[in-house]
Amino acid sequence: MINLKQYLTRQQHLINKAIVNYLPNRNSTPVALYKAMSYSTNSGGKRIRPILTLATGKMLGAKENELLPVACAIEFVHTYSLIHDDLPAMDNDDFRRGKPTVHKKFGEAVAILAGDALLTRAFEIIATEVKDVKLSQRLTSEISHAVGAEGMVGGQVLDLEFTQKSSLIKRNPLEDTRFNKLYDKMLLMKTANLIQSAILCGAIIARANNKLLFYLSIYGNHLGLAFQLKDDAIDSPRQEKDRCLIKAKYHIEHAKITLNHLGKKTEVLQSLADYVINRTY
Amino acid sequence: MINLKQYLTRQQHLINKAIVNYLPNRNSTPVALYKAMSYSTNSGGKRIRPILTLATGKMLGAKENELLPVACAIEFVHTYSLIHDDLPAMDNDDFRRGKPTVHKKFGEAVAILAGDALLTRAFEIIATEVKDVKLSQRLTSEISHAVGAEGMVGGQVLDLEFTQKSSLIKRNPLEDTRFNKLYDKMLLMKTANLIQSAILCGAIIARANNKLLFYLSIYGNHLGLAFQLKDDAIDSPRQEKDRCLIKAKYHIEHAKITLNHLGKKTEVLQSLADYVINRTY
Repeated sequence: MINLKQYLTRQQHLINKAIVNYLPNRNSTPVALYKAMSYSTNSGGKRIRPILTLATGKMLGAKENELLPVACAIEFVHTYSLIHDDLPAMDNDDFRRGKPTVHKKFGEAVAILAGDALLTRAFEIIATEVKDVKLSQRLTSEISHAVGAEGMVGGQVLDLEFTQKSSLIKRNPLEDTRFNKLYDKMLLMKTANLIQSAILCGAIIARANNKLLFYLSIYGNHLGLAFQLKDDAIDSPRQEKDRCLIKAKYHIEHAKITLNHLGKKTEVLQSLADYVINRTY
Repeated sequence: MINLKQYLTRQQHLINKAIVNYLPNRNSTPVALYKAMSYSTNSGGKRIRPILTLATGKMLGAKENELLPVACAIEFVHTYSLIHDDLPAMDNDDFRRGKPTVHKKFGEAVAILAGDALLTRAFEIIATEVKDVKLSQRLTSEISHAVGAEGMVGGQVLDLEFTQKSSLIKRNPLEDTRFNKLYDKMLLMKTANLIQSAILCGAIIARANNKLLFYLSIYGNHLGLAFQLKDDAIDSPRQEKDRCLIKAKYHIEHAKITLNHLGKKTEVLQSLADYVINRTY
Protein backbone atom coordinates (compact mmCIF):
# COMPACT_ATOMS: atom_id res chain seq x y z
CA MET A 1 0.00 0.00 0.00
CA ILE A 2 1.13 3.56 -0.70
CA ASN A 3 1.25 6.30 1.95
CA LEU A 4 -1.85 8.08 0.66
CA LYS A 5 -1.56 11.22 2.77
CA GLN A 6 2.00 11.82 1.60
CA TYR A 7 1.04 10.99 -1.98
CA LEU A 8 -1.89 13.44 -1.98
CA THR A 9 0.21 16.24 -0.47
CA ARG A 10 2.91 15.78 -3.12
CA GLN A 11 0.45 15.72 -5.99
CA GLN A 12 -1.47 18.74 -4.65
CA HIS A 13 1.81 20.63 -4.39
CA LEU A 14 2.71 19.69 -7.97
CA ILE A 15 -0.67 20.90 -9.25
CA ASN A 16 -0.70 24.08 -7.17
CA LYS A 17 2.71 24.98 -8.57
CA ALA A 18 1.74 24.24 -12.17
CA ILE A 19 -1.74 25.78 -12.21
CA VAL A 20 -0.44 29.36 -11.81
CA ASN A 21 1.52 29.00 -15.06
CA TYR A 22 -1.62 28.11 -16.99
CA LEU A 23 -3.57 31.23 -16.07
CA PRO A 24 -3.91 33.64 -19.02
CA ASN A 25 -1.20 36.23 -19.72
CA ARG A 26 -1.33 38.64 -16.80
CA ASN A 27 -0.38 41.68 -18.92
CA SER A 28 -3.22 41.20 -21.43
CA THR A 29 -5.93 40.35 -18.87
CA PRO A 30 -7.96 43.02 -17.00
CA VAL A 31 -6.72 43.21 -13.39
CA ALA A 32 -10.02 42.31 -11.70
CA LEU A 33 -10.52 39.32 -13.99
CA TYR A 34 -7.01 38.00 -13.45
CA LYS A 35 -7.40 38.38 -9.67
CA ALA A 36 -10.71 36.51 -9.66
CA MET A 37 -9.28 33.70 -11.81
CA SER A 38 -6.18 33.47 -9.63
CA TYR A 39 -8.18 33.61 -6.37
CA SER A 40 -10.57 30.86 -7.41
CA THR A 41 -7.91 28.48 -8.74
CA ASN A 42 -5.73 28.85 -5.64
CA SER A 43 -8.24 28.32 -2.90
CA GLY A 44 -7.09 25.10 -1.29
CA GLY A 45 -9.17 22.52 -3.14
CA LYS A 46 -8.51 18.79 -2.82
CA ARG A 47 -7.40 18.62 -6.49
CA ILE A 48 -8.96 15.16 -6.73
CA ARG A 49 -9.75 15.49 -10.46
CA PRO A 50 -6.28 16.49 -11.68
CA ILE A 51 -4.76 13.92 -9.29
CA LEU A 52 -6.88 11.24 -10.99
CA THR A 53 -5.60 12.39 -14.40
CA LEU A 54 -1.98 12.18 -13.19
CA ALA A 55 -2.45 8.84 -11.40
CA THR A 56 -4.19 7.14 -14.34
CA GLY A 57 -1.77 8.52 -16.92
CA LYS A 58 1.32 7.55 -14.90
CA MET A 59 -0.03 4.05 -14.24
CA LEU A 60 -0.27 3.59 -18.01
CA GLY A 61 3.18 5.04 -18.76
CA ALA A 62 2.44 8.68 -19.74
CA LYS A 63 4.95 11.38 -18.80
CA GLU A 64 4.17 13.93 -16.12
CA ASN A 65 4.88 16.92 -18.39
CA GLU A 66 2.33 15.60 -20.90
CA LEU A 67 -0.28 15.09 -18.18
CA LEU A 68 0.10 18.31 -16.18
CA PRO A 69 -1.41 20.88 -18.60
CA VAL A 70 -4.48 18.70 -19.14
CA ALA A 71 -4.80 18.03 -15.40
CA CYS A 72 -4.74 21.80 -14.80
CA ALA A 73 -7.29 22.41 -17.57
CA ILE A 74 -9.62 19.92 -15.87
CA GLU A 75 -9.19 21.75 -12.55
CA PHE A 76 -10.05 25.02 -14.36
CA VAL A 77 -13.28 23.43 -15.62
CA HIS A 78 -14.09 22.25 -12.09
CA THR A 79 -13.35 25.72 -10.67
CA TYR A 80 -15.58 27.44 -13.25
CA SER A 81 -18.42 25.09 -12.30
CA LEU A 82 -18.00 25.95 -8.60
CA ILE A 83 -18.00 29.71 -9.28
CA HIS A 84 -21.22 29.55 -11.32
CA ASP A 85 -22.76 27.09 -8.85
CA ASP A 86 -22.18 29.45 -5.93
CA LEU A 87 -23.91 32.42 -7.64
CA PRO A 88 -27.02 33.97 -6.01
CA ALA A 89 -29.23 32.65 -8.82
CA MET A 90 -27.94 29.12 -8.16
CA ASP A 91 -26.89 27.86 -4.68
CA ASN A 92 -26.30 31.39 -3.34
CA ASP A 93 -23.29 30.44 -1.21
CA ASP A 94 -21.28 33.15 0.56
CA PHE A 95 -18.38 30.91 1.56
CA ARG A 96 -16.42 28.04 0.05
CA ARG A 97 -13.72 26.26 2.02
CA GLY A 98 -13.95 29.00 4.67
CA LYS A 99 -13.22 31.81 2.20
CA PRO A 100 -15.66 34.25 0.55
CA THR A 101 -17.01 32.93 -2.76
CA VAL A 102 -15.86 34.70 -5.94
CA HIS A 103 -19.05 36.78 -6.33
CA LYS A 104 -18.83 37.84 -2.66
CA LYS A 105 -15.25 39.03 -3.14
CA PHE A 106 -15.34 40.40 -6.71
CA GLY A 107 -19.05 41.00 -7.41
CA GLU A 108 -21.50 38.91 -9.37
CA ALA A 109 -20.62 40.20 -12.85
CA VAL A 110 -16.90 39.49 -12.49
CA ALA A 111 -17.72 36.06 -11.00
CA ILE A 112 -19.84 35.08 -14.02
CA LEU A 113 -17.09 36.29 -16.37
CA ALA A 114 -14.26 34.64 -14.39
CA GLY A 115 -16.13 31.33 -14.70
CA ASP A 116 -16.57 31.89 -18.44
CA ALA A 117 -12.88 32.75 -18.82
CA LEU A 118 -11.71 29.65 -16.91
CA LEU A 119 -13.82 27.34 -19.07
CA THR A 120 -12.52 29.01 -22.24
CA ARG A 121 -8.94 28.91 -20.98
CA ALA A 122 -9.25 25.16 -20.31
CA PHE A 123 -9.94 24.55 -23.99
CA GLU A 124 -7.15 26.95 -24.98
CA ILE A 125 -4.67 25.04 -22.80
CA ILE A 126 -5.60 21.74 -24.44
CA ALA A 127 -5.33 23.27 -27.92
CA THR A 128 -1.97 24.95 -27.32
CA GLU A 129 -0.11 22.80 -24.74
CA VAL A 130 -0.88 19.35 -26.13
CA LYS A 131 1.53 19.10 -29.05
CA ASP A 132 0.09 15.92 -30.65
CA VAL A 133 -2.89 17.35 -32.58
CA LYS A 134 -4.76 14.03 -32.70
CA LEU A 135 -4.49 13.80 -28.92
CA SER A 136 -5.53 17.43 -28.51
CA GLN A 137 -8.66 16.81 -30.60
CA ARG A 138 -9.59 13.65 -28.63
CA LEU A 139 -9.16 15.40 -25.28
CA THR A 140 -11.25 18.41 -26.39
CA SER A 141 -13.96 16.08 -27.62
CA GLU A 142 -13.90 14.01 -24.40
CA ILE A 143 -13.97 16.96 -21.98
CA SER A 144 -16.47 19.11 -23.91
CA HIS A 145 -18.95 16.24 -24.00
CA ALA A 146 -18.48 15.38 -20.32
CA VAL A 147 -19.10 18.92 -19.08
CA GLY A 148 -21.71 20.21 -21.55
CA ALA A 149 -25.50 20.02 -21.90
CA GLU A 150 -25.45 16.21 -21.88
CA GLY A 151 -23.06 16.10 -18.93
CA MET A 152 -22.13 18.42 -16.06
CA VAL A 153 -24.15 21.49 -17.11
CA GLY A 154 -27.18 19.28 -17.82
CA GLY A 155 -26.72 17.79 -14.34
CA GLN A 156 -26.83 21.26 -12.81
CA VAL A 157 -30.18 21.87 -14.51
CA LEU A 158 -31.51 18.53 -13.18
CA ASP A 159 -30.23 19.55 -9.73
CA LEU A 160 -32.26 22.79 -9.91
CA GLU A 161 -35.35 20.81 -10.90
CA PHE A 162 -34.72 18.23 -8.20
CA THR A 163 -34.45 20.92 -5.52
CA GLN A 164 -37.65 22.59 -6.73
CA LYS A 165 -39.62 19.33 -6.91
CA SER A 166 -38.35 18.09 -3.51
CA SER A 167 -39.81 21.14 -1.83
CA LEU A 168 -43.20 20.45 -3.41
CA ILE A 169 -43.69 16.95 -2.04
CA LYS A 170 -44.06 16.24 1.65
CA ARG A 171 -42.31 12.92 2.08
CA ASN A 172 -38.55 12.42 1.74
CA PRO A 173 -37.85 12.61 -2.00
CA LEU A 174 -35.29 9.81 -1.71
CA GLU A 175 -38.12 7.40 -0.79
CA ASP A 176 -39.90 8.09 -4.07
CA THR A 177 -38.80 5.85 -6.96
CA ARG A 178 -39.21 8.46 -9.68
CA PHE A 179 -37.23 10.98 -7.68
CA ASN A 180 -34.62 8.36 -6.89
CA LYS A 181 -34.14 7.79 -10.61
CA LEU A 182 -33.90 11.52 -11.32
CA TYR A 183 -31.49 11.87 -8.39
CA ASP A 184 -29.16 9.15 -9.71
CA LYS A 185 -29.19 10.64 -13.22
CA MET A 186 -28.43 14.05 -11.72
CA LEU A 187 -25.45 12.68 -9.71
CA LEU A 188 -24.13 10.95 -12.80
CA MET A 189 -24.28 14.04 -14.98
CA LYS A 190 -23.42 16.69 -12.40
CA THR A 191 -20.41 15.06 -10.76
CA ALA A 192 -19.51 11.62 -12.10
CA ASN A 193 -19.06 12.74 -15.73
CA LEU A 194 -16.19 15.15 -15.00
CA ILE A 195 -14.47 12.73 -12.58
CA GLN A 196 -14.76 9.96 -15.17
CA SER A 197 -13.45 12.34 -17.82
CA ALA A 198 -10.43 13.30 -15.66
CA ILE A 199 -9.53 9.60 -15.48
CA LEU A 200 -10.13 8.98 -19.19
CA CYS A 201 -8.01 11.99 -20.16
CA GLY A 202 -5.05 10.47 -18.29
CA ALA A 203 -5.63 7.21 -20.18
CA ILE A 204 -6.05 8.96 -23.54
CA ILE A 205 -2.73 10.80 -23.05
CA ALA A 206 -1.12 7.40 -22.32
CA ARG A 207 -2.60 6.14 -25.64
CA ALA A 208 -4.59 3.46 -23.78
CA ASN A 209 -6.41 0.83 -25.86
CA ASN A 210 -10.18 0.46 -25.93
CA LYS A 211 -10.24 -2.31 -23.33
CA LEU A 212 -8.43 -0.10 -20.81
CA LEU A 213 -10.65 2.88 -21.67
CA PHE A 214 -13.73 0.71 -21.17
CA TYR A 215 -12.79 -0.51 -17.68
CA LEU A 216 -11.50 2.91 -16.63
CA SER A 217 -14.79 4.51 -17.69
CA ILE A 218 -16.63 2.08 -15.39
CA TYR A 219 -14.16 2.76 -12.57
CA GLY A 220 -14.64 6.51 -13.12
CA ASN A 221 -18.39 6.20 -13.16
CA HIS A 222 -18.51 4.38 -9.80
CA LEU A 223 -15.87 6.63 -8.27
CA GLY A 224 -17.71 9.78 -9.37
CA LEU A 225 -21.05 8.57 -7.98
CA ALA A 226 -19.41 7.57 -4.69
CA PHE A 227 -17.71 10.96 -4.50
CA GLN A 228 -20.99 12.88 -4.74
CA LEU A 229 -22.81 10.46 -2.40
CA LYS A 230 -20.06 10.89 0.19
CA ASP A 231 -20.35 14.68 -0.22
CA ASP A 232 -24.11 14.44 0.30
CA ALA A 233 -23.59 12.17 3.34
CA ILE A 234 -21.31 14.77 4.96
CA ASP A 235 -24.06 17.41 4.62
CA SER A 236 -27.11 15.22 5.50
CA PRO A 237 -29.05 14.36 8.67
CA ARG A 238 -28.45 10.93 10.29
CA GLN A 239 -30.91 8.63 8.43
CA GLU A 240 -30.19 10.06 4.98
CA LYS A 241 -26.45 10.05 5.77
CA ASP A 242 -26.54 6.27 6.34
CA ARG A 243 -28.45 5.72 3.09
CA CYS A 244 -25.95 7.82 1.10
CA LEU A 245 -23.00 6.01 2.69
CA ILE A 246 -24.39 2.55 1.90
CA LYS A 247 -24.75 3.56 -1.75
CA ALA A 248 -21.32 5.21 -1.78
CA LYS A 249 -19.68 2.06 -0.36
CA TYR A 250 -21.41 -0.06 -2.99
CA HIS A 251 -19.94 2.10 -5.76
CA ILE A 252 -16.44 2.09 -4.23
CA GLU A 253 -16.52 -1.72 -4.00
CA HIS A 254 -17.43 -1.91 -7.68
CA ALA A 255 -14.84 0.72 -8.63
CA LYS A 256 -12.10 -1.34 -6.95
CA ILE A 257 -13.22 -4.66 -8.43
CA THR A 258 -13.22 -3.07 -11.90
CA LEU A 259 -9.53 -2.17 -11.51
CA ASN A 260 -8.63 -5.88 -11.39
CA HIS A 261 -9.54 -6.15 -15.08
CA LEU A 262 -6.85 -3.68 -16.12
CA GLY A 263 -3.85 -5.96 -15.60
CA LYS A 264 -1.85 -2.96 -14.36
CA LYS A 265 -0.33 -1.80 -11.06
CA THR A 266 -3.48 -0.23 -9.65
CA GLU A 267 -2.38 0.50 -6.04
CA VAL A 268 -2.75 4.27 -6.46
CA LEU A 269 -6.21 4.11 -8.05
CA GLN A 270 -7.26 1.57 -5.34
CA SER A 271 -6.05 3.96 -2.63
CA LEU A 272 -7.78 6.92 -4.26
CA ALA A 273 -11.05 4.94 -4.22
CA ASP A 274 -10.56 4.31 -0.47
CA TYR A 275 -9.82 8.01 0.01
CA VAL A 276 -13.07 9.03 -1.70
CA ILE A 277 -15.12 7.05 0.82
CA ASN A 278 -12.96 7.66 3.93
CA ARG A 279 -12.34 11.42 3.63
CA THR A 280 -14.00 13.58 6.24
CA TYR A 281 -14.35 16.80 4.17
CA MET B 1 -21.54 44.52 -57.02
CA ILE B 2 -23.56 41.73 -55.43
CA ASN B 3 -27.18 42.07 -54.36
CA LEU B 4 -26.36 42.28 -50.65
CA LYS B 5 -29.90 42.00 -49.31
CA GLN B 6 -30.51 38.81 -51.27
CA TYR B 7 -27.09 37.47 -50.31
CA LEU B 8 -27.67 38.10 -46.59
CA THR B 9 -31.13 36.49 -46.65
CA ARG B 10 -29.75 33.37 -48.35
CA GLN B 11 -26.85 33.04 -45.94
CA GLN B 12 -29.06 33.63 -42.89
CA HIS B 13 -31.43 30.95 -44.14
CA LEU B 14 -28.51 28.55 -44.62
CA ILE B 15 -27.24 29.18 -41.07
CA ASN B 16 -30.69 29.06 -39.47
CA LYS B 17 -31.27 25.66 -41.08
CA ALA B 18 -27.88 24.27 -40.04
CA ILE B 19 -27.71 25.62 -36.50
CA VAL B 20 -30.59 23.42 -35.24
CA ASN B 21 -28.58 20.33 -36.19
CA TYR B 22 -25.65 21.39 -34.04
CA LEU B 23 -27.60 21.70 -30.80
CA PRO B 24 -26.79 18.88 -28.35
CA ASN B 25 -28.69 15.58 -28.51
CA ARG B 26 -32.24 16.43 -27.51
CA ASN B 27 -32.83 13.07 -25.78
CA SER B 28 -29.84 13.38 -23.44
CA THR B 29 -30.34 17.07 -22.58
CA PRO B 30 -32.70 18.24 -19.79
CA VAL B 31 -35.84 19.73 -21.38
CA ALA B 32 -35.50 23.24 -19.92
CA LEU B 33 -31.86 23.47 -20.97
CA TYR B 34 -32.56 22.30 -24.52
CA LYS B 35 -35.42 24.78 -24.82
CA ALA B 36 -33.27 27.68 -23.60
CA MET B 37 -30.44 26.75 -25.98
CA SER B 38 -32.86 26.37 -28.88
CA TYR B 39 -34.72 29.62 -28.05
CA SER B 40 -31.55 31.68 -27.85
CA THR B 41 -29.95 30.33 -31.02
CA ASN B 42 -33.13 30.82 -33.06
CA SER B 43 -34.04 34.37 -32.17
CA GLY B 44 -33.61 36.23 -35.45
CA GLY B 45 -30.05 37.49 -35.17
CA LYS B 46 -28.22 39.06 -38.12
CA ARG B 47 -25.79 36.10 -38.22
CA ILE B 48 -23.03 38.49 -39.26
CA ARG B 49 -20.24 36.42 -37.65
CA PRO B 50 -21.04 33.05 -39.27
CA ILE B 51 -21.71 34.88 -42.57
CA LEU B 52 -18.18 36.32 -42.36
CA THR B 53 -16.78 32.81 -41.81
CA LEU B 54 -18.67 31.50 -44.86
CA ALA B 55 -17.81 34.51 -47.04
CA THR B 56 -14.09 34.45 -46.21
CA GLY B 57 -13.79 30.69 -46.55
CA LYS B 58 -15.65 30.57 -49.87
CA MET B 59 -13.58 33.45 -51.28
CA LEU B 60 -10.47 31.37 -50.57
CA GLY B 61 -11.87 28.12 -51.99
CA ALA B 62 -13.13 26.25 -48.89
CA LYS B 63 -16.22 24.08 -49.20
CA GLU B 64 -19.50 25.10 -47.58
CA ASN B 65 -19.88 21.79 -45.68
CA GLU B 66 -16.44 22.34 -44.10
CA LEU B 67 -17.31 25.91 -43.12
CA LEU B 68 -20.84 25.45 -41.77
CA PRO B 69 -20.15 23.60 -38.48
CA VAL B 70 -17.48 26.14 -37.52
CA ALA B 71 -19.72 29.05 -38.54
CA CYS B 72 -22.47 27.64 -36.30
CA ALA B 73 -20.00 27.11 -33.43
CA ILE B 74 -19.03 30.78 -33.69
CA GLU B 75 -22.69 31.81 -33.57
CA PHE B 76 -23.08 29.63 -30.43
CA VAL B 77 -20.19 31.51 -28.81
CA HIS B 78 -21.80 34.82 -29.76
CA THR B 79 -25.18 33.67 -28.39
CA TYR B 80 -23.65 32.56 -25.08
CA SER B 81 -22.03 35.99 -24.71
CA LEU B 82 -25.38 37.72 -25.29
CA ILE B 83 -27.17 35.52 -22.72
CA HIS B 84 -24.59 36.24 -20.01
CA ASP B 85 -24.41 39.90 -21.02
CA ASP B 86 -28.17 40.33 -20.57
CA LEU B 87 -28.18 38.89 -17.01
CA PRO B 88 -29.35 41.08 -14.09
CA ALA B 89 -25.78 41.22 -12.70
CA MET B 90 -24.54 42.52 -16.07
CA ASP B 91 -26.65 44.72 -18.42
CA ASN B 92 -29.96 43.58 -16.88
CA ASP B 93 -31.89 43.57 -20.16
CA ASP B 94 -35.45 42.22 -20.28
CA PHE B 95 -35.73 42.17 -24.07
CA ARG B 96 -33.49 41.37 -27.01
CA ARG B 97 -34.71 41.82 -30.58
CA GLY B 98 -38.22 42.37 -29.22
CA LYS B 99 -38.34 39.04 -27.40
CA PRO B 100 -37.85 38.31 -23.67
CA THR B 101 -34.19 37.61 -22.81
CA VAL B 102 -33.30 34.05 -21.81
CA HIS B 103 -33.29 34.77 -18.05
CA LYS B 104 -36.69 36.48 -18.34
CA LYS B 105 -38.15 33.44 -20.09
CA PHE B 106 -36.35 30.57 -18.35
CA GLY B 107 -35.05 32.05 -15.09
CA GLU B 108 -31.59 33.27 -14.21
CA ALA B 109 -30.08 29.90 -13.25
CA VAL B 110 -31.08 28.22 -16.52
CA ALA B 111 -29.84 31.28 -18.46
CA ILE B 112 -26.38 31.07 -16.87
CA LEU B 113 -26.24 27.33 -17.58
CA ALA B 114 -27.57 27.66 -21.16
CA GLY B 115 -24.75 30.14 -21.84
CA ASP B 116 -22.22 27.74 -20.34
CA ALA B 117 -23.61 24.86 -22.39
CA LEU B 118 -23.50 26.83 -25.67
CA LEU B 119 -19.86 27.80 -25.14
CA THR B 120 -18.96 24.20 -24.31
CA ARG B 121 -20.94 22.89 -27.27
CA ALA B 122 -19.06 25.26 -29.62
CA PHE B 123 -15.77 23.57 -28.68
CA GLU B 124 -17.37 20.14 -28.96
CA ILE B 125 -18.59 20.93 -32.50
CA ILE B 126 -15.10 21.98 -33.58
CA ALA B 127 -13.56 18.86 -32.02
CA THR B 128 -16.05 16.43 -33.53
CA GLU B 129 -17.23 17.96 -36.83
CA VAL B 130 -13.87 19.15 -38.18
CA LYS B 131 -12.33 15.91 -39.45
CA ASP B 132 -8.80 17.25 -40.08
CA VAL B 133 -7.32 17.15 -36.56
CA LYS B 134 -4.63 19.76 -37.30
CA LEU B 135 -7.36 22.13 -38.49
CA SER B 136 -9.53 21.32 -35.47
CA GLN B 137 -6.64 22.17 -33.12
CA ARG B 138 -5.89 25.47 -34.91
CA LEU B 139 -9.53 26.55 -34.85
CA THR B 140 -9.91 25.70 -31.14
CA SER B 141 -6.74 27.64 -30.38
CA GLU B 142 -7.87 30.64 -32.48
CA ILE B 143 -11.40 30.88 -31.06
CA SER B 144 -10.52 30.13 -27.42
CA HIS B 145 -7.93 32.91 -27.43
CA ALA B 146 -10.25 35.41 -29.14
CA VAL B 147 -13.11 34.93 -26.67
CA GLY B 148 -11.27 34.31 -23.38
CA ALA B 149 -9.73 36.48 -20.67
CA GLU B 150 -7.43 38.24 -23.16
CA GLY B 151 -10.29 38.73 -25.64
CA MET B 152 -14.07 38.93 -25.45
CA VAL B 153 -14.54 38.05 -21.76
CA GLY B 154 -11.75 40.45 -20.80
CA GLY B 155 -13.52 43.11 -22.87
CA GLN B 156 -16.72 42.55 -20.89
CA VAL B 157 -14.81 43.20 -17.68
CA LEU B 158 -13.35 46.41 -19.14
CA ASP B 159 -16.88 47.38 -20.20
CA LEU B 160 -18.08 46.98 -16.57
CA GLU B 161 -15.19 49.14 -15.37
CA PHE B 162 -15.80 51.70 -18.10
CA THR B 163 -19.47 52.00 -17.17
CA GLN B 164 -18.64 52.36 -13.47
CA LYS B 165 -15.90 54.96 -14.08
CA SER B 166 -18.02 56.95 -16.56
CA SER B 167 -20.66 57.48 -13.90
CA LEU B 168 -18.03 58.86 -11.50
CA ILE B 169 -16.76 61.68 -13.73
CA LYS B 170 -18.92 64.61 -14.72
CA ARG B 171 -17.76 65.38 -18.23
CA ASN B 172 -18.35 63.14 -21.22
CA PRO B 173 -15.95 60.20 -20.79
CA LEU B 174 -15.25 60.17 -24.53
CA GLU B 175 -13.57 63.59 -24.20
CA ASP B 176 -11.04 62.23 -21.71
CA THR B 177 -7.91 60.75 -23.33
CA ARG B 178 -7.38 58.02 -20.74
CA PHE B 179 -11.00 56.94 -21.02
CA ASN B 180 -10.81 57.08 -24.78
CA LYS B 181 -7.88 54.67 -24.69
CA LEU B 182 -9.71 52.33 -22.30
CA TYR B 183 -12.81 52.60 -24.49
CA ASP B 184 -10.91 51.61 -27.65
CA LYS B 185 -9.24 48.68 -25.90
CA MET B 186 -12.64 47.58 -24.61
CA LEU B 187 -14.21 47.70 -28.11
CA LEU B 188 -11.31 45.73 -29.51
CA MET B 189 -11.55 42.96 -26.92
CA LYS B 190 -15.31 42.87 -26.43
CA THR B 191 -16.47 42.89 -30.06
CA ALA B 192 -13.67 43.06 -32.61
CA ASN B 193 -11.83 39.94 -31.43
CA LEU B 194 -14.72 37.55 -32.14
CA ILE B 195 -15.56 39.20 -35.49
CA GLN B 196 -11.90 38.99 -36.49
CA SER B 197 -11.82 35.38 -35.34
CA ALA B 198 -14.90 34.50 -37.40
CA ILE B 199 -13.07 35.81 -40.48
CA LEU B 200 -9.80 34.06 -39.62
CA CYS B 201 -11.58 30.74 -39.02
CA GLY B 202 -12.94 30.88 -42.58
CA ALA B 203 -9.41 31.53 -43.83
CA ILE B 204 -7.88 28.80 -41.66
CA ILE B 205 -10.39 26.25 -43.01
CA ALA B 206 -9.37 27.33 -46.54
CA ARG B 207 -5.71 26.69 -45.54
CA ALA B 208 -4.84 30.34 -46.19
CA ASN B 209 -1.15 31.31 -46.10
CA ASN B 210 0.31 33.72 -43.54
CA LYS B 211 0.11 36.74 -45.86
CA LEU B 212 -3.64 36.24 -46.34
CA LEU B 213 -4.14 35.64 -42.60
CA PHE B 214 -2.21 38.83 -41.84
CA TYR B 215 -4.32 41.08 -44.10
CA LEU B 216 -7.58 39.39 -43.08
CA SER B 217 -6.75 39.94 -39.40
CA ILE B 218 -6.37 43.68 -40.13
CA TYR B 219 -9.62 43.67 -42.12
CA GLY B 220 -11.35 41.85 -39.23
CA ASN B 221 -9.96 44.23 -36.68
CA HIS B 222 -11.27 47.33 -38.51
CA LEU B 223 -14.58 45.67 -39.33
CA GLY B 224 -15.11 44.61 -35.71
CA LEU B 225 -14.36 48.08 -34.35
CA ALA B 226 -16.66 49.67 -36.94
CA PHE B 227 -19.40 47.19 -36.03
CA GLN B 228 -19.36 48.12 -32.34
CA LEU B 229 -19.02 51.86 -33.07
CA LYS B 230 -22.04 51.67 -35.40
CA ASP B 231 -23.96 49.81 -32.66
CA ASP B 232 -23.01 52.53 -30.18
CA ALA B 233 -24.02 55.23 -32.68
CA ILE B 234 -27.50 53.69 -33.04
CA ASP B 235 -27.99 53.92 -29.25
CA SER B 236 -26.33 57.32 -28.62
CA PRO B 237 -27.53 60.96 -28.43
CA ARG B 238 -26.83 63.24 -31.44
CA GLN B 239 -23.30 64.59 -30.70
CA GLU B 240 -21.87 61.27 -29.57
CA LYS B 241 -23.60 59.52 -32.48
CA ASP B 242 -21.69 61.73 -34.97
CA ARG B 243 -18.40 61.04 -33.22
CA CYS B 244 -19.00 57.26 -33.26
CA LEU B 245 -19.99 57.35 -36.93
CA ILE B 246 -16.87 59.29 -37.96
CA LYS B 247 -14.70 56.67 -36.24
CA ALA B 248 -16.76 53.81 -37.68
CA LYS B 249 -16.41 55.21 -41.22
CA TYR B 250 -12.65 55.55 -40.72
CA HIS B 251 -12.40 51.85 -39.82
CA ILE B 252 -14.61 50.74 -42.72
CA GLU B 253 -12.43 52.71 -45.16
CA HIS B 254 -9.35 50.97 -43.80
CA ALA B 255 -11.04 47.57 -43.80
CA LYS B 256 -11.88 47.96 -47.50
CA ILE B 257 -8.43 49.24 -48.48
CA THR B 258 -6.86 46.25 -46.70
CA LEU B 259 -8.85 43.85 -48.91
CA ASN B 260 -6.95 45.12 -51.99
CA HIS B 261 -3.80 43.42 -50.68
CA LEU B 262 -5.41 39.97 -50.83
CA GLY B 263 -5.33 39.55 -54.59
CA LYS B 264 -8.67 37.75 -54.42
CA LYS B 265 -12.26 38.42 -55.51
CA THR B 266 -13.27 40.49 -52.50
CA GLU B 267 -16.69 41.83 -53.63
CA VAL B 268 -18.56 40.01 -50.85
CA LEU B 269 -16.22 41.16 -48.08
CA GLN B 270 -16.33 44.72 -49.53
CA SER B 271 -20.14 44.62 -49.49
CA LEU B 272 -20.21 43.24 -45.96
CA ALA B 273 -18.03 46.17 -44.84
CA ASP B 274 -20.53 48.58 -46.42
CA TYR B 275 -23.35 46.71 -44.71
CA VAL B 276 -21.72 47.09 -41.29
CA ILE B 277 -21.72 50.88 -41.63
CA ASN B 278 -25.02 51.31 -43.50
CA ARG B 279 -27.27 48.99 -41.47
CA THR B 280 -30.00 50.66 -39.44
CA TYR B 281 -30.34 48.06 -36.64
